[in-house]
Amino acid sequence: MSGHVVSSYDADLNDLRQRILTMGGLVEKMIADAVKSLVDRDTELAERIIAMDHEVNNHEVVIDERCLELLALRQPTGKDLRFITLALKIVTDLERIGDKCANMAKRARQLNQEPPLKPYIDIPRMAHWVEVMIKEALDAFVRGDDVLAVKVCKDDQMVDDLNEQVQRELYSYMIEDPSTISRAMRLTYISKSLERIADHATNIAEMVIFMVKGKDIRHTIA
Amino acid sequence: MSGHVVSSYDADLNDLRQRILTMGGLVEKMIADAVKSLVDRDTELAERIIAMDHEVNNHEVVIDERCLELLALRQPTGKDLRFITLALKIVTDLERIGDKCANMAKRARQLNQEPPLKPYIDIPRMAHWVEVMIKEALDAFVRGDDVLAVKVCKDDQMVDDLNEQVQRELYSYMIEDPSTISRAMRLTYISKSLERIADHATNIAEMVIFMVKGKDIRHTIA
Repeated sequence: MSGHVVSSYDADLNDLRQRILTMGGLVEKMIADAVKSLVDRDTELAERIIAMDHEVNNHEVVIDERCLELLALRQPTGKDLRFITLALKIVTDLERIGDKCANMAKRARQLNQEPPLKPYIDIPRMAHWVEVMIKEALDAFVRGDDVLAVKVCKDDQMVDDLNEQVQRELYSYMIEDPSTISRAMRLTYISKSLERIADHATNIAEMVIFMVKGKDIRHTIA
Repeated sequence: MSGHVVSSYDADLNDLRQRILTMGGLVEKMIADAVKSLVDRDTELAERIIAMDHEVNNHEVVIDERCLELLALRQPTGKDLRFITLALKIVTDLERIGDKCANMAKRARQLNQEPPLKPYIDIPRMAHWVEVMIKEALDAFVRGDDVLAVKVCKDDQMVDDLNEQVQRELYSYMIEDPSTISRAMRLTYISKSLERIADHATNIAEMVIFMVKGKDIRHTIA
């Protein structure tokens, strides 16, 4: 949007923050829409999500370049250096989330061609929490808010529990009626994808805590 | 190991290269051993892999810090800047691969408590290719070898095909005999994990091509 006309260092950093939030917003929408395309059996929406993956990839390329420019031209140290190098890592997480959303949409497209297996209750709930986690992880990043980041790490358990519940339920469908196996496997895949997107949010949040506190709590919260 | 006694810039970069290869070697061994713990029904080996995950995490923390030191103290530009920022991204991929190996070992531990479902042929073949892909992606990185990186991207298809074959075979087991479902699901998980580790190798290789060529071929090969 803006950014290239201004030249002060702070404006450049704000532009970077804004670009990451924009990319994050896109990815949050893809999560919600991927699950909506499943619940509403909306194959056209699924197709649009699959196409949106390119847009996410373009954001990644542009943000990577902006980070490299900032490192080369501004030669930041300390807090700013941690912020920019973390931005480089975070865009990779966001890009992989975009991939996972496109893959969920592909499974939804397949599922929409067969009779529905069951009403979806836990999967939309998971999607909601996962979206909130991504949003809060990125807010924590741009604001340097370690308290919010700790909350995100804790919320991961909720998504793990929901995923476990979905897996168990789908397993019982498969055991009782093998004709449900292929549909149940696709739903299993969607549930696991959501759980893995929550892991990305948790990874981002852990890195934010490191950025703020300057010490590494990654691999100690689990 | 070495590195902290020397002080020239080139020596620092070489130390970084060496640390990434060491971390890569550890991860390659974890892939091989996770599948070995399944094939040989060796639960003790599975436990050791689960414990090794901490070691991978420690490598990540140290390499991240070395990269930040290099950026702050040496203020690199151009080729060296791309190399160091890419190192930051690559260690994240390697750390996530370590997580996946630990998770595969957990599934192997569960599978070892039940009668074997079938002789494992394709999964060890996949593991072999995935190991080669990781090794070659990291060699391409430290040598700046874009030709080798392109080979890694192409090899990904082979692993995808093997995974498809394994998935189809396990699906037919489940359909024919629902008592195999829980074991087949665990094997499905292991096969998909290997496929995703190959995706990490491909991601690394694509980033290396970008580093060498200076233009982004990510999201155009696929």
